[in-house]
Amino acid sequence: MKIDVCYTPDLIHQYEVENKTVVVIDILRATSCMVAGLGSGVQSITPVATVEECEALGQQGYVMAGERGGEKIEQFQLGNSPFDYMKPELKGAKIATTTTNGTKAIELSKGAKEVIIGAFLNLNAVVNHLNKCQNDILLFCAGWKGKYNLEDSLFAGAVCNAMKQSAEFESDSALCAFYLYQSMASDISYYINRSNHAARLSKFNIREDIEYCSKLNEFNVLPKLVGSTLVVA
Amino acid sequence: MKIDVCYTPDLIHQYEVENKTVVVIDILRATSCMVAGLGSGVQSITPVATVEECEALGQQGYVMAGERGGEKIEQFQLGNSPFDYMKPELKGAKIATTTTNGTKAIELSKGAKEVIIGAFLNLNAVVNHLNKCQNDILLFCAGWKGKYNLEDSLFAGAVCNAMKQSAEFESDSALCAFYLYQSMASDISYYINRSNHAARLSKFNIREDIEYCSKLNEFNVLPKLVGSTLVVA
Repeated sequence: MKIDVCYTPDLIHQYEVENKTVVVIDILRATSCMVAGLGSGVQSITPVATVEECEALGQQGYVMAGERGGEKIEQFQLGNSPFDYMKPELKGAKIATTTTNGTKAIELSKGAKEVIIGAFLNLNAVVNHLNKCQNDILLFCAGWKGKYNLEDSLFAGAVCNAMKQSAEFESDSALCAFYLYQSMASDISYYINRSNHAARLSKFNIREDIEYCSKLNEFNVLPKLVGSTLVVA
Repeated sequence: MKIDVCYTPDLIHQYEVENKTVVVIDILRATSCMVAGLGSGVQSITPVATVEECEALGQQGYVMAGERGGEKIEQFQLGNSPFDYMKPELKGAKIATTTTNGTKAIELSKGAKEVIIGAFLNLNAVVNHLNKCQNDILLFCAGWKGKYNLEDSLFAGAVCNAMKQSAEFESDSALCAFYLYQSMASDISYYINRSNHAARLSKFNIREDIEYCSKLNEFNVLPKLVGSTLVVA
C-alpha cells in the first residue's frame, strides 16, 4: 500500500487518481464542516461549484451553505463554519454547499476508486478506513486558490505519520508532509494560527472556528462521496 | 523585504518574478555544479534546453556538460557531477550545460530583476547578497519533472531560516519550508539521502555527489545570470 500527497489542485495533473482512495482535505473550513455536519446527524452534503447550482438544490428543499472569499453567501442559511453545521435542527437535513477550494478538489477527485473526506476532526476514522481498505492512497490538499497551504499539508502529514508503519511513502511530498507534522504535532492549533489562511480569515472573527478545526477526533465519522453527494460511509 | 518559495516549475504561474530576485535551486545536482564550477575558476556556464543547442556551443569552443535522466550525455565532456566541474583544466573555460530540471527553472525565471543560483555549497553567499540587495525574493525550486522535492525545498527552508529576521515570509510555502529546515537542519545529508531523488540516483553510484551537494559554504561565490549566461556576480 502506497501513500502520496498532492499539495494543491494545481499539481493534480501529476497524479493518477484511478484505483486509489483519495482523501480530500480542506481544513479551513470545508472538510471540517462536512465532518462536523455528518457527525452531528446531517443526512447528506452535496458540494456544487456555483451559487446558482446551490440555489437550484435549495428549491428542492436542500439547506444552502457556502462562502465566497471566507464570507457567508448572503441569501444562504449556513456559512462555512463547523458550528453552523452542528445545529440540532439540521438532523436529517440535506445540505447543498459551495466553497472556494474544497468543492474544486472534490470535483477533481471524481474518477478515483473512492473519495473520502478528511479533517483533524475525524483523523482516526480516516486512518482506520485507509488501513482497512488497502488501496493506494492520495491525500489531496485543497490548498488556497491553487496555492500550497500549511493546514492541509499538516493534516496530510498527520495521516502519513499515523500510517508510517502500514504504507510506503511514494514521494518526497509524503515524506516532507510527515516531517512537517513531526515538527508541529506538539501544538497544531498554534501552527495553524500562524498560517496565511488564518491571517486572511482573522478579519472575519472566526478564531473559534480555527480552534475547533484544529481539534482531533471529535467525530468518529467518515464522509464518503456517493455519486455527487457526501454521506456517512 | 518579502521572501516566498515556489516549490516546483508547475506552480510558477502563481508567482510574479518581475522586480524580484529569483534564486534558482536544483541541489541534485545542477545548481550545485554551477556553484562548484564558478567557484573553482570556470569563466562562465551557459544553460541551454537541448542537447543540440549544447553541441552548437561546443562547436564554438564551449565545454559541453549535461545529463538526461541522471546520466552523462555520451558525447559530452562533463556529466552533472560537481566533481566534473572542479577539474583544474576547466579554469577559465566556458561551459555549456543542459540538465533536466535546473535549466527549465532558469528559463522560467527570465524576466526577473535578477536571477542567481543557490545551493548548500554557497548558502552564505546567497544570503549575504539577498540581505544587501533588498529586493523581494522568490526561492524557485527546480523540483523533479515538475514535482515537489525534498532537497530543493530544504535549501529554500535554509535560506528562509537565515533570513527570518530580515525578511517577511510571504506565504505558507515559505513558512513550511522554514519549519522543514528546522526539523532537518541537524543532519542535512541524512535527510537528502532519504529523498526520492537520492533513491533514483543511487543506481548511478553517485553517493559522493550527494554527500558533496549537502555540504555548506564550500564556496563564497554567487553565480548570476547575465543575458543567458551564468558568471560570478
